[in-house]
Amino acid sequence: MAVTRRDDTCAPPAAAPVPAAGGRRPRADRARQVADVLRRQVLYGDLRSGALPAEAELVREFGASRNTVREALALLRAEGLIERCPGVGTHAVAEKYPHGLERLLGLAETLREHGEVANEVRLTGLITPSREISSRLGTPGGEPVVYIERIRRLNGLPLSLDLTYIPRDLGEPLLAEDLVRNDIFVLLERIAGRPLGRAEVMLEAVNADPHSAATLDAPRGAALLMLERLTHLSDGRPVDLEFIRFRGDRITMSGSMSRA
Amino acid sequence: MAVTRRDDTCAPPAAAPVPAAGGRRPRADRARQVADVLRRQVLYGDLRSGALPAEAELVREFGASRNTVREALALLRAEGLIERCPGVGTHAVAEKYPHGLERLLGLAETLREHGEVANEVRLTGLITPSREISSRLGTPGGEPVVYIERIRRLNGLPLSLDLTYIPRDLGEPLLAEDLVRNDIFVLLERIAGRPLGRAEVMLEAVNADPHSAATLDAPRGAALLMLERLTHLSDGRPVDLEFIRFRGDRITMSGSMSRA
Repeated sequence: MAVTRRDDTCAPPAAAPVPAAGGRRPRADRARQVADVLRRQVLYGDLRSGALPAEAELVREFGASRNTVREALALLRAEGLIERCPGVGTHAVAEKYPHGLERLLGLAETLREHGEVANEVRLTGLITPSREISSRLGTPGGEPVVYIERIRRLNGLPLSLDLTYIPRDLGEPLLAEDLVRNDIFVLLERIAGRPLGRAEVMLEAVNADPHSAATLDAPRGAALLMLERLTHLSDGRPVDLEFIRFRGDRITMSGSMSRA
Repeated sequence: MAVTRRDDTCAPPAAAPVPAAGGRRPRADRARQVADVLRRQVLYGDLRSGALPAEAELVREFGASRNTVREALALLRAEGLIERCPGVGTHAVAEKYPHGLERLLGLAETLREHGEVANEVRLTGLITPSREISSRLGTPGGEPVVYIERIRRLNGLPLSLDLTYIPRDLGEPLLAEDLVRNDIFVLLERIAGRPLGRAEVMLEAVNADPHSAATLDAPRGAALLMLERLTHLSDGRPVDLEFIRFRGDRITMSGSMSRA
């Protein structure tokens, strides 16, 4: 690797890349670089469910030292993406599924090809919402709304913990439906008699608090992808406010963005 | 709160919400529910840069016990979103900024209203890329590409660590530009003489490895929002492959999604 170090943030722009003598660079920086490229191949590319190339091959492929490659593999192992079996080699073990950022889909709709989504319904009922909830759902202050709390599993593995608020006129009929096997999106459209339209989403990465971690069978402090989503019917009426904690090791979000 | 517990994942759908006697529910579950509503108000709503209502007021607002409200505040405090000063009260302290999921914008473009983005350019140079990088950038195998590694700061606070790969014909002129003050997106458009078009993105939540955490001045294991993004020119040519680790406590991603 021909590289130039620039430690001074105020340095003038480099004229052209200058090979650094000996390429002295912390191994952890080089390992991250290798791991980032391998990550996608392991998750969704040619290394998905299979053996990884031997270390010697990765050394050639990345033009990196054997120790750098080992450290890159250690990073992916720490994330639970690969496993190393002595005498057998390293292989991909990620159970991480893509959730689309573009089209508004329920989890069971999205993951149909990956297996069966089943919901553990922890809690359902009418609550008197705070002003913030009433205001976002467009319901009169003080009017009860339906609250639903679910753990969502794919093939038995916890994916997410979902807290859902729905206006009473749609939420009460929803509670008579099978919430274990169905996405709320699909049920809501049936009950409302019209399709969903748009949703505003906010995505964050947060460390799981101890209780959320335990609820999701994840280690304490595990990285969660937190999604807040307000979904509207096609006529613009807000009907579904959700706070979703996805296990970071189980879900990726993918989509496309446009400059224009 | 009138609620029904359902611990059996295979239970038949509930007929209607039944108030649970006494609403016996782990306090941590109720605290999470309160914290999730407050989180957005603290980040982007009416509680943004200011004092939070007194505990007694939150108790009324959420119909929750004082202990539940305290536990909810403790959750937000653990995430660094609020601070409690004895004798003064609790106030919002989050320095977390919204990044759009819809329109493809550079960080400085996006955060213009929040302050100045400055990039610490840690490394620039030509590298011989792995097959995966060549293939995604559409460059001939073995042809060098430009690699740029930056820490991006807003008002001095680290936001992200960005690893960027760019085809040589565009990347070399880029290295002659001021990478400290400018977004690569803006520079690329100038050099290519045409606008950027679309980008494919993949978002994940991951725990920071020790070295990435140290690089971003974040605690070990901190939740990171990891973004992999391949950006194309308006004519479809892929020109910018980035691997970005955002500090989870500094960035939220927001946008809208459509059902149709």
